[in-house]
Amino acid sequence: MNPVMFKMKFTKGLAAVTACLALLSGPALAEKVHHLKLAETWPSNFPIFGDATKNFAQMAEKMSNGRLKITVDSKNKHKAALGIFDMVRSGQYDMGHSASYYWKGKDPNTLFFTTMPFGMTAPEQYGWFYYGGGMELMEKVYDKHNVLSFPGGNTGNQMGGWFQKEINSVEDLQGLKMRIPGFAGEVLAKLGAKPTNIPAGELYTSLERRTIDALEWVGPSLDLRMGFHKIAPYYYTGWHEPATELQFMINKRAWNKLPDDLKEILRVAMRTAAYDMYIQSYHASGENWATMKQEYPNIKVKTFPKQVMDAMRKANAELLEERAAADPLAKEIIDSQADYMAKSRVWTEISDMAYIQGQ
Amino acid sequence: MNPVMFKMKFTKGLAAVTACLALLSGPALAEKVHHLKLAETWPSNFPIFGDATKNFAQMAEKMSNGRLKITVDSKNKHKAALGIFDMVRSGQYDMGHSASYYWKGKDPNTLFFTTMPFGMTAPEQYGWFYYGGGMELMEKVYDKHNVLSFPGGNTGNQMGGWFQKEINSVEDLQGLKMRIPGFAGEVLAKLGAKPTNIPAGELYTSLERRTIDALEWVGPSLDLRMGFHKIAPYYYTGWHEPATELQFMINKRAWNKLPDDLKEILRVAMRTAAYDMYIQSYHASGENWATMKQEYPNIKVKTFPKQVMDAMRKANAELLEERAAADPLAKEIIDSQADYMAKSRVWTEISDMAYIQGQ
Repeated sequence: MNPVMFKMKFTKGLAAVTACLALLSGPALAEKVHHLKLAETWPSNFPIFGDATKNFAQMAEKMSNGRLKITVDSKNKHKAALGIFDMVRSGQYDMGHSASYYWKGKDPNTLFFTTMPFGMTAPEQYGWFYYGGGMELMEKVYDKHNVLSFPGGNTGNQMGGWFQKEINSVEDLQGLKMRIPGFAGEVLAKLGAKPTNIPAGELYTSLERRTIDALEWVGPSLDLRMGFHKIAPYYYTGWHEPATELQFMINKRAWNKLPDDLKEILRVAMRTAAYDMYIQSYHASGENWATMKQEYPNIKVKTFPKQVMDAMRKANAELLEERAAADPLAKEIIDSQADYMAKSRVWTEISDMAYIQGQ
Repeated sequence: MNPVMFKMKFTKGLAAVTACLALLSGPALAEKVHHLKLAETWPSNFPIFGDATKNFAQMAEKMSNGRLKITVDSKNKHKAALGIFDMVRSGQYDMGHSASYYWKGKDPNTLFFTTMPFGMTAPEQYGWFYYGGGMELMEKVYDKHNVLSFPGGNTGNQMGGWFQKEINSVEDLQGLKMRIPGFAGEVLAKLGAKPTNIPAGELYTSLERRTIDALEWVGPSLDLRMGFHKIAPYYYTGWHEPATELQFMINKRAWNKLPDDLKEILRVAMRTAAYDMYIQSYHASGENWATMKQEYPNIKVKTFPKQVMDAMRKANAELLEERAAADPLAKEIIDSQADYMAKSRVWTEISDMAYIQGQ
């Protein structure tokens, strides 16, 4: 080999090695980057709910060393807060972050995977999802829609709401105008109340001007910024959403394109983001409740009297019976939840409940 | 270029591309595999606690596509159930799974990161760890030992234990021989009881033959297999370990060798395994309690009378004051926990507590 040829070969060889090293310098360069678009129901920078999607996306990107890039579009961008289910089903978005009970008009059995009046608390419900058959039932419901659904973050026990007047009897519910959407609204309607839904931006004024008599939102974690404690004296403890679990959704075709390691990264990042949101909500509730009480020491925390609770529970049971009678899968889910709650509630009562009551 | 030279170049080029593709065909081939050895306090196939390490190792391996290989050695292998701290500190093991309060003889401030008598419940304590400064305080304590510590799985509220006789007054604690290790044992000793520690394998016989009058273990999740419900009639509700959190430990030198993506995978896998264990414990507690009650319907669930609880709380507070007076960092931790609990407990009371009591 003459010197010129050697130099030429050496240069080419070096170029090949350099190119190879460049490809290997990080998996982000070496391997396919998967871009996923996620649409969330919440406005931009919405606290806690919006933190859950940010937390999820950051964990997934870091764990995959940049091989997963997740773009989160808030409702300010996609303009369809309650269109998430359709957008994920059609593949317009790969993923969604919302709440399963919003889709009961599209499939009545999606109702059961958020929270139910007089249902399970957060640890009880996570037990049902992960060890008591809940995930399998959710898959059964979502399968036909070409969507996978996962727990997406728990608010903890939601407060019963802000009331201008005390509720002392079932009669006090007659004609009560209350912002309370969903299944809980149906329960109250059976007892003579007038549930309405009003956009978030108009709630404060409606309650202040007595266009409505009461409203429920979430609890101290998100109620503080809404300012309701400044204009309504009674804050009732919860009955209708004991463990509101948000939802991550993934389009199945988008899911099936991913390699196994990235599927596992998404699965674990969603589960962690959901648990984290439960703990963040718990934290924010304690903090914000202290702030509310400091600013307005006269907030009166009330629990509905037993007569009212009994009537609501009865109305709730009747509505569930109607659903169970209409659809075998609904019956299967309702029975599974009732059986699971019976066992786990006894434990709740002799563990945390007995502990706190005994002090 | 003559045809021979072209062929030669083409062949070399092809070889370089082939070599490059081989390197890229999977991260497991292309990138360094990191082997981590983990020692756990528990025997082989120990339920729930042992499931947490398996769950953690599996998530980490899958998410890293095999770039993390975690070997879990049970105490049957390493023969040093309570040597985990030393083995991780020295680097003999890269990781450990145990409980922080076991190391109070080595560093008294490790006591505070598992659970404290009359302390926080599980969601309250997770709030403290992740949003209330708990992680930062734990890092402060462990930093000088060259070890990172993370939550490792929660048992939920532990039961007060199995008793042969009812406890109706503080006098009934005089001379009571009870298996109850750790700080709770110190509390009971102050009130005249005789706390002892007995190996797990001898507990059943000791309680059956009345060598001891009482013992605490965990709760239904792990008590069922021990069989205590067959030989002691009274099952007291908890006060001494309201949210026992196990611990993952990592040697800092081993940690610092890892690339950022694998650090994040470990961080998230540990956090998820910890939360999962809390939910698994909750689930198993409900299931196993139902089994116990079915087999032995006469188990009597009791809560210590107020007089006894007050005396134990007072003894506990005095012991904490001694520790706070002896060490500024202990005081900082004790104050942080007390402040956090005060705020979050109000929320627990008006959320899950009010909800369950109101039904």
